[in-house]
Amino acid sequence: MASGDRPTGLIANKGIELLTFGTPNGVKASIMLEELKETYGMDYTFQGINIMQNIQKEPWFTKLGPNGRIPVIVDHDKGDYAVMEGLAILNYLTKFYDPEHKFSFTDDLDICTAEQWMAWQHGGMGPMQGQAGQYYRFLKERIPHPTQRYVGETERLYGVLDARLAGRDYIAGQGKGKYSIADINTFGWVNGCGLAGINLEQFPNVYAWWERVRARPAVEKGLSVPSGAPSPFGWRELQKKRAEDPEAAKAEEPLKEALEAAKKQYNYVYKSP
Amino acid sequence: MASGDRPTGLIANKGIELLTFGTPNGVKASIMLEELKETYGMDYTFQGINIMQNIQKEPWFTKLGPNGRIPVIVDHDKGDYAVMEGLAILNYLTKFYDPEHKFSFTDDLDICTAEQWMAWQHGGMGPMQGQAGQYYRFLKERIPHPTQRYVGETERLYGVLDARLAGRDYIAGQGKGKYSIADINTFGWVNGCGLAGINLEQFPNVYAWWERVRARPAVEKGLSVPSGAPSPFGWRELQKKRAEDPEAAKAEEPLKEALEAAKKQYNYVYKSP
Repeated sequence: MASGDRPTGLIANKGIELLTFGTPNGVKASIMLEELKETYGMDYTFQGINIMQNIQKEPWFTKLGPNGRIPVIVDHDKGDYAVMEGLAILNYLTKFYDPEHKFSFTDDLDICTAEQWMAWQHGGMGPMQGQAGQYYRFLKERIPHPTQRYVGETERLYGVLDARLAGRDYIAGQGKGKYSIADINTFGWVNGCGLAGINLEQFPNVYAWWERVRARPAVEKGLSVPSGAPSPFGWRELQKKRAEDPEAAKAEEPLKEALEAAKKQYNYVYKSP
Repeated sequence: MASGDRPTGLIANKGIELLTFGTPNGVKASIMLEELKETYGMDYTFQGINIMQNIQKEPWFTKLGPNGRIPVIVDHDKGDYAVMEGLAILNYLTKFYDPEHKFSFTDDLDICTAEQWMAWQHGGMGPMQGQAGQYYRFLKERIPHPTQRYVGETERLYGVLDARLAGRDYIAGQGKGKYSIADINTFGWVNGCGLAGINLEQFPNVYAWWERVRARPAVEKGLSVPSGAPSPFGWRELQKKRAEDPEAAKAEEPLKEALEAAKKQYNYVYKSP
C-alpha cells in the first residue's frame, strides 16, 4: 500500500497481516509483532487503518473484525483466520508464534495470573481511560459529571496497578515478574495516560515500569509502526512538547481547571482500590 | 455463613470458594459453577459479597481480588489460588474442571474464536452497558450527553451481537455453535439490558439466544445463587413487573423520555457496527 492510499482489502497472501492504527489498543498488536520479529525474525504485513476515515466500518473490514474496531490481525497461513480484540490477538500470537515462551508462560497458574491482569486492563483500565480521554479532552463540551467520574475511575485503576507493581519489574510472572503479553497489553494505555488527564508521576511504580518497557527497542518500533512515528500523545512526547512550547502547556490549563472544578463539584477524593 | 452475616474472610478449606453478588458480572461465575455442578457433580462454597456495603474493598477481599470488584473465586485445592475478572474465571474453571469440554473447546481456532467474543463482551458490551445503566437509571441527575453516548454505544454493540447470532444458536463453535463460556460470559449482561435502557426486542437474534440460554436449569440456578432469587432487573422479571404493576411501568417513563430527549439533542441515529 502506497502511503496515503486508502486500504480497500487485504494485500498479503502469507504470514500475518496487521490492520491497526496508533491508538493505545492499536499498538498492542504492533508492539507484539515487533517483539516477535526481533526475537524470531518473523515478518508481517502492515496496513494502516485510519479510524478518522471510518475504514474500520467498511464491509471488507467488518467481515474480519465484526465489531468495526482496530486492531485486527489475519493469519494467511491458517486459512486467512482473523482475530479481533487486543487480548485475543496477544494470546493468539504467542500461542502460535512464541515457541520459546519469551513473552508468555508455560505454568498453568502463571498463564492465569497474566490473563487476570490482561482482563483487568481490557475490561477496566482501557474502557475507563478511553472515556476519560473523551470527556477530559476530545469532546467539545466540558461536562463535569462524566469528566470526574472517568478520570477518577482511571486514577483508581492506576492505583491498583501501582500496588501490583510494588517490588515487581513486570505485571505477571514469579518473583519480580517477567516481561510478557500482560505488559504489552497495558503499555499503550499507560503511555497515553496524559490524553486522559492522568499524571503518571502520581504513580511511581507505574512510572518506573513505563520507563522500563519503553526502553525496549521493539516497543519503540511498535509505537512507530502505525503512523511512522510514536504518537505525539505519548507521555514522553507530551512532556517534551510542553517543555519546549509554552503555548502547548498553556492550552492544557483550561482542561486541567475543568477537571479540578468537576472533582470539587462532586466531592471527588482519590481512593484505590 | 449465616444469611445476613457480613463476610470477613474465607470459610472453606477445599474445593472452589465463590465470592460474588447478583450483578451481570457476578452471575458469570455462579452460572458456570452451577453448570459444572449439574454436569460433573462438582460442589463449591458460596459467600455473598454485598457490594452496597463495600465488602469488596476490605483488605481480606483485596488480597484475593486486588481490583476490589466481584466476582472472585479461590481454589483451595490449588494452594488457595485466587482468580479475579470474569473472563479469567471462566477460562480457569473450564481449564481445570471441565475435562469433557462440555462448555469449552479443544480446537485452537475454536478456542480463539470463543476468546475473541469473550474479550468483546469483557472490554466492550460490559463496560459500556455498565455506564449506560448509571446514566440511564442509577445516578440521581439525568445528564444528556453520557446518557445517549452509552445507551447508543450499547445498542451498537447489541447490533454486533445480533449479526453474530444470525443463523446461529450460540456465540462460538462450528456450524450453529455450541453452548459455552462465550455464552455464559455474555448472558448476565443481556439478561440485565433493561437496566440500561436497552429494548431486547429490538434485537431478535439476541432475544432468541437469551430465551435459549435462560431455559437452562443451571442458568436459572446460577442467577439465584447470589441473592436467593434471580435479580428483579432480569428481562423476564422486569417485563412481568411492568405488566402487573402500572406504577412500575409509569416510573420508567421519565427515564425513557430523558433518553429520547438526549438522543434528539445530540442527533443520535442507531447504527451498527
